[in-house]
Amino acid sequence: MEKTQEDVMSKLTKQDYIKGILDGNTIVLSRAITLLESTKEEHYTLAQEILQQILPKTGNAKRIGITGVPGVGKSTIIEALGLKILEDKTNKIAVLAIDPSSQLSKGSILGDKTRMELLSANSNAYIRPTSAGNKLGGVSRKTHETLLLCEAAGFNHIIIETVGVGQSETAVNAMVDCFLLLLLPGAGDELQGIKRGIMEMADIIAVNKSIENEKVSTQANKARKEINTALHYFPSKEFSWITKVLNVDALKNYNIDKLQETIDNFFNHQNQKGYLNKRRNQQDVSRLEETINQTILQNFYENDMVKQELTKWKQEIVAGKTTSYQAAEKIILNLKSKG
Amino acid sequence: MEKTQEDVMSKLTKQDYIKGILDGNTIVLSRAITLLESTKEEHYTLAQEILQQILPKTGNAKRIGITGVPGVGKSTIIEALGLKILEDKTNKIAVLAIDPSSQLSKGSILGDKTRMELLSANSNAYIRPTSAGNKLGGVSRKTHETLLLCEAAGFNHIIIETVGVGQSETAVNAMVDCFLLLLLPGAGDELQGIKRGIMEMADIIAVNKSIENEKVSTQANKARKEINTALHYFPSKEFSWITKVLNVDALKNYNIDKLQETIDNFFNHQNQKGYLNKRRNQQDVSRLEETINQTILQNFYENDMVKQELTKWKQEIVAGKTTSYQAAEKIILNLKSKG
Repeated sequence: MEKTQEDVMSKLTKQDYIKGILDGNTIVLSRAITLLESTKEEHYTLAQEILQQILPKTGNAKRIGITGVPGVGKSTIIEALGLKILEDKTNKIAVLAIDPSSQLSKGSILGDKTRMELLSANSNAYIRPTSAGNKLGGVSRKTHETLLLCEAAGFNHIIIETVGVGQSETAVNAMVDCFLLLLLPGAGDELQGIKRGIMEMADIIAVNKSIENEKVSTQANKARKEINTALHYFPSKEFSWITKVLNVDALKNYNIDKLQETIDNFFNHQNQKGYLNKRRNQQDVSRLEETINQTILQNFYENDMVKQELTKWKQEIVAGKTTSYQAAEKIILNLKSKG
Repeated sequence: MEKTQEDVMSKLTKQDYIKGILDGNTIVLSRAITLLESTKEEHYTLAQEILQQILPKTGNAKRIGITGVPGVGKSTIIEALGLKILEDKTNKIAVLAIDPSSQLSKGSILGDKTRMELLSANSNAYIRPTSAGNKLGGVSRKTHETLLLCEAAGFNHIIIETVGVGQSETAVNAMVDCFLLLLLPGAGDELQGIKRGIMEMADIIAVNKSIENEKVSTQANKARKEINTALHYFPSKEFSWITKVLNVDALKNYNIDKLQETIDNFFNHQNQKGYLNKRRNQQDVSRLEETINQTILQNFYENDMVKQELTKWKQEIVAGKTTSYQAAEKIILNLKSKG
């Protein structure tokens, strides 16, 4: 009986996975990412073992986050920027797309492979949608681990794409070196739906769809200037970088080289001063502490006694019978005495 | 032997405190606030009992937070605004000033009573500096509890002042109904040192020191317009309020009536739609959850075993031997098995 590819793949040993990844074999890489995403305990254990083995080979990519509301042209920008980067034949790009809506609708991002046609046809590019997990911190962990696998597989540019209207941006910002925000020329318009904190995360802001009748439109120019003004009202960036704003147009291939140059300047600046390592170390430590905090608090709030106590005390507070501080003390005291 | 006032005061019973506060006796009020701030266990217990008794009489004030960097003219604005509010003889104002630096330097805010000369001479005004506690959540709890005591004492306007460069703004924002940010006409200037998130908390922004040669300066006008533009890049406010920006000059008494009117409009808008109660209920629930979370996490991190494990695993992470997620799992697992 002939073996199907599935049979062969499912027989991969841990060593096969590790070798395949380090060889840059994208079929094995995809398979390893699927392991990471699996909910089976044995897959989880295997994936974690693989991760630990490939860890020394990670950290060599430029990790770039790209966000913007639907319609801003993320895929078009990624395709244009990606092709530009791949003009240097030594470069390899992995694009990880996080779609918070994918669980329900299978989301639009899952169609990105079709939308980034030229990029996905390039053998030095690897495009992978990351469907949102349902666990606390699920998406960010899977995405971060996927990023590490891609680095071990030799991708020296990792682009993580989010839709800019959810919670994932903070998580992504915490795992990339450079955060790129895409806006539209109708900027200043609240319809842009930018979420709390996203503007101040941005290292680079690109106003896409800036070209009209073969030149930068008045509106796009105005948007760029307004954003520059607005940025003064945001706290200054860490690591002495001043957020850059530029007009681009991915469809018309305008200023994509400038965008690439700005990203390079950012990395040169960060590298020269040793900021890149510092940022990554900070990210690692925060990730450790946040994972611990989330786990501890999740355990606490999942406790049935806690749920009951909370409901009871919230009523007492709303009824004006106790302060929040007194209630908090009592809840914790009650649990200690009972638990 | 003659009794000193101190002797009399120290003999106050719980009932004396409660009656004194409800009668609006500011000497008893001050004494009760001192009890709140005391580190002695018996004082703490007594203060909490008093609080619980006066709770039904709280909630009737307009709770206003005012922040801005040193030099922006907070005291001058509070004095001008306060005197305006006190023109209505039925109004009573309490000003609580939080100075994060007070522990070290005894801070500049402690001098506010001198700086707000006219206001502090007014019998319907009560000014009280709140020195920063050294406990987690210390300042915010004491300030919130002080606010409640002031409300029970009949103050229908509570102004909480912070210096705008620390961590206290988030805490204050979580206990007031209306958050007022003061800026200078040199706006757009990063020297303003506005901290992360403060711009988006503001319900009202006043550009102080706007008058030059008896009219609003070009710079002050420009600042107001720029801030309005910048605000479009911040997420829209909850409770359908659009942040208002105005030029004022407290020393020259310019637009202070407009400021008061804007604050009144804000409260009318919030009251009409039932938003004020909704906001306060949300604040109560968040305060409960945050106090619980802080207490639980503080207990965790104070544990010696946790400290050792953290140090060890942070080294492993930096050395590239494990991921933050794996380390977090191991720390929690180790503690469960040992503890």
